[in-house]
Amino acid sequence: MQSKGKRVVIIGGGAVGPKAASRARRLEPDADIKIIERGKFISYAACGMPYYISGDISDSRELIARDAAYFKDRLDVDVLTETEVLSIDRKAGRVNCRETGGREFPLPYDALVVATGAEPFVPPLEGRELTGIFKLKGIPDAIAIRDYLKKEEPRKAAIVGAGLIGLEMAEAFRARGLSVTVVEMLDWPLPALLDFEIATILGKYLEEEGVNLVFSRKATGFDGTPGGRVKRLRTEDGPIDCDVALISIGVRPNTSLAAEAGLELGPARAIAVNEFLQTNDPAIYAGGDCVECKHLVTGKPAFVPLGSTANKHGRVIGNNVVGGRDVFPGILGTAIAKVLGMAVGRTGLTEREAVEAGYKVVCSTVTPNDIAHYYPGGNRITLKLVADGNTGRVLGAQCVGKGEVAKRIDVLATALSSGMSATDLANLDLSYAPPYNSAMDAIHHAANVIRNKMDGTARSIPPQQLKDKMNGQENLVILDVRSEREWRELRLGHSKVRHVPMERLSQTAARDYEGKEIVTLCKSSVRAYHAQKMLERKGLSDVKFLDGSLLVWPYDVKKSK
Amino acid sequence: MQSKGKRVVIIGGGAVGPKAASRARRLEPDADIKIIERGKFISYAACGMPYYISGDISDSRELIARDAAYFKDRLDVDVLTETEVLSIDRKAGRVNCRETGGREFPLPYDALVVATGAEPFVPPLEGRELTGIFKLKGIPDAIAIRDYLKKEEPRKAAIVGAGLIGLEMAEAFRARGLSVTVVEMLDWPLPALLDFEIATILGKYLEEEGVNLVFSRKATGFDGTPGGRVKRLRTEDGPIDCDVALISIGVRPNTSLAAEAGLELGPARAIAVNEFLQTNDPAIYAGGDCVECKHLVTGKPAFVPLGSTANKHGRVIGNNVVGGRDVFPGILGTAIAKVLGMAVGRTGLTEREAVEAGYKVVCSTVTPNDIAHYYPGGNRITLKLVADGNTGRVLGAQCVGKGEVAKRIDVLATALSSGMSATDLANLDLSYAPPYNSAMDAIHHAANVIRNKMDGTARSIPPQQLKDKMNGQENLVILDVRSEREWRELRLGHSKVRHVPMERLSQTAARDYEGKEIVTLCKSSVRAYHAQKMLERKGLSDVKFLDGSLLVWPYDVKKSK
Repeated sequence: MQSKGKRVVIIGGGAVGPKAASRARRLEPDADIKIIERGKFISYAACGMPYYISGDISDSRELIARDAAYFKDRLDVDVLTETEVLSIDRKAGRVNCRETGGREFPLPYDALVVATGAEPFVPPLEGRELTGIFKLKGIPDAIAIRDYLKKEEPRKAAIVGAGLIGLEMAEAFRARGLSVTVVEMLDWPLPALLDFEIATILGKYLEEEGVNLVFSRKATGFDGTPGGRVKRLRTEDGPIDCDVALISIGVRPNTSLAAEAGLELGPARAIAVNEFLQTNDPAIYAGGDCVECKHLVTGKPAFVPLGSTANKHGRVIGNNVVGGRDVFPGILGTAIAKVLGMAVGRTGLTEREAVEAGYKVVCSTVTPNDIAHYYPGGNRITLKLVADGNTGRVLGAQCVGKGEVAKRIDVLATALSSGMSATDLANLDLSYAPPYNSAMDAIHHAANVIRNKMDGTARSIPPQQLKDKMNGQENLVILDVRSEREWRELRLGHSKVRHVPMERLSQTAARDYEGKEIVTLCKSSVRAYHAQKMLERKGLSDVKFLDGSLLVWPYDVKKSK
Repeated sequence: MQSKGKRVVIIGGGAVGPKAASRARRLEPDADIKIIERGKFISYAACGMPYYISGDISDSRELIARDAAYFKDRLDVDVLTETEVLSIDRKAGRVNCRETGGREFPLPYDALVVATGAEPFVPPLEGRELTGIFKLKGIPDAIAIRDYLKKEEPRKAAIVGAGLIGLEMAEAFRARGLSVTVVEMLDWPLPALLDFEIATILGKYLEEEGVNLVFSRKATGFDGTPGGRVKRLRTEDGPIDCDVALISIGVRPNTSLAAEAGLELGPARAIAVNEFLQTNDPAIYAGGDCVECKHLVTGKPAFVPLGSTANKHGRVIGNNVVGGRDVFPGILGTAIAKVLGMAVGRTGLTEREAVEAGYKVVCSTVTPNDIAHYYPGGNRITLKLVADGNTGRVLGAQCVGKGEVAKRIDVLATALSSGMSATDLANLDLSYAPPYNSAMDAIHHAANVIRNKMDGTARSIPPQQLKDKMNGQENLVILDVRSEREWRELRLGHSKVRHVPMERLSQTAARDYEGKEIVTLCKSSVRAYHAQKMLERKGLSDVKFLDGSLLVWPYDVKKSK
């Protein structure tokens, strides 16, 4: 086959490949562009699959953006589906292909794109071949799960892994009327994405919504019926009945083809690429779920496979395979999910990640309404900011709630991209009208708390630390400054907690607390901070407020019945 | 009266004053802090008033955040309501006050804060003293309008001025069942905030929702009933019947007190302040609706009175009156409004403003869904980006639609704050999950169109220019590349428009169009851009697509009945 222009071969028809092909075609009318895809489908919206399973999306075809005919007719791009690449022969500049159950043939390239994606990791659990146990990778998986739900009418779902897919599928199974148990090896939901106390807000909500969450428990295998159907998920600590199961403990990059061809992998064990998304072979580009990218906060490679990144990679690669020098700057690990009506998002580093990366960390957690408090329809959100205590630079953010979360995450991702500090955030000219925001956004509040902590105006204690102190420190006094009614409804059930409403606190004499370590708390920490300042004005020096107060307290509370 | 600490006097109890007072108190336990307010209320949410009038908010007390007792009890701040400041005596370091209908007295200050706000501008229209004609400034105005609606049951509202307040009040009157006519002197709604073609999207929507919009028409006066009630708004071009009217043509800063004391006003005729919000008298600070701020794009002073800015000013001033050196960096003129279910927002410069400021401007307009196209509940938005064609730096953005507008505006305001370019925007790691976004955000698309235009990949023509050309240029051909069905439903009714669907275009021979100036269009410009590239591959060079295509076309179209 003789071609006029540059021969571009793209391995993988997910997000990167079609995008790169379209872009390259627009720049280079003469290029010979081919996409090779192992499966039947190209250019599909993998992230929509849980909503196809839940029934929010009725037809799986809605998830397919473009088909092979479109690429041929509109863009003169050849798409070879059901064709596998067996090996990359870098010396000869060609890939060796095989049609499913058919002939083998070579394809020469001038530029090659490796976009082989990632695969759900399925550990070698005993019984995993039983009917009714699924993973969720491509459209065929999604169709298989939905068909199984319809035909077999299972009632009890077990999900192994409380990551993004696990929780989105918990919502999908609930929407189909199943009871759901999620088993997670670590101690909280979305453990790779959130800090403990933020994740616990989501966890408590999911329990209220009828999702059974089991943490710190390892799945060990499955038991089946005599007919070969799954009937139990086995764990270290006893079995969990189920008649359908999903394994969603994470994905691994598909790197074997690249590795066998001698392309370098990076520290995160995905394909290493430079800022042009070039591998160590300058004729070979790689992008999407099979590569690692520079993290814009740490500057180090990170493996964060996401469809949004893959789309951007596609454009950069499309530019570069036809001679461009377009740069992909990096990622922030931004992620968001909707789980049973609650939104949860993050960007940059969590507190734990920031500490591990060696930063002296200052955090703030605020829990305001997402819009003006007096405008109908508002909802509370919890926003945690993580900053570098030496410079004030913002390192990361997490946000959870039934209110507008995505906006805050996106603003903060934008701020992180340019290295903004808490002071920069505090003065951002964000849009304000009562239906969309308060005059001061959650971000402004959280940034000001960081500033107050850094300049010593505000002193606080995180819930985990207070919990530890509660059962030791002799001279600790915890002052709950809420109203009588609030106190009756719900409180920390602990002997060190005293109820002194704000009105009374101003009358309180300093000598009652001299020599004590005082922690103030309220519902959201706004009054607790005021109380700290009031007690300081009385001459007391060892006063802190509880970060996030009761709205973020991740442990048990005492409720009036 | 002897005080232990620094004497801080604040003129004005709106947003700046209470915020500055609280902040100063937290930093300085000994300061003697006083707020002087002419009216009855302090610390109220002026932006909520249209929603109180509409009935979305039932009780006006919801709009009042804090009262004088709160400031005294919690913060030891004295609030003197119904007290006017007559003059500022800078030499003596005191202000001269008068209680409403009562005694006069001086108040000495070490630091003074001028937060006198702004006043709606009411031109000297004949008949403006008639009953039923309102302005909307403070809580008493809002209560008066709502009471009037209840008692007098007017049926026809006339609003003079299609700015933010005018349109929010159009919604409020509609919500109360009135017919509404808005008369605007300029040519489109929100003329100070939006470019013509973006504003026209909002205008068309409002007309569909039953709001009667009258542009390019000046109000000249009012006629009344024998009983002294308004019954007609007179305009240059005939009268408009009404039994209630609102004048909302903008606000003017309250600067007389400052000017009489010799404080400098700036080019925007509001009080001039430095980055510490200090006036030319270092002991006197000013903030909120009475000052002008540095615009972060142009670097020049701008008068943009907004509650969100006032709140930030309050904190900066609170820091500085007790010895701090906190900086307020500036504003972007960010604004947003909800008008009858449509959101409309902007930040930075409009195209017009950018051209006037001397930039070589490149714009892009995209019209995608606000979330994944396959996820239920999504809505279209229109996003226009304005960039500096020499550097790619983004100068401003406008967004309108029933979908998620605020998020895009806030991300772009954040990007503008750090001087990001279109290339920076194109790679932002924004959050993605189908309920919240597409894999590529509207911002990514719009930024890539800017990049395509700058590197010559994409060539387009704005609607205003095409309109001009349609009735001249002999060799112009406009190709509508949409499907047969779309063409039947709606099209540009003009002899130069030919219908050549995409499928047919690939078969079209280049010689049919040689020597012609070709403009392609579709619904949203995605296919029109593809068509441009396809025709270029055929060897045609003078091909452009219509910016925003039919979704943004601000002129008449031909619809099938």
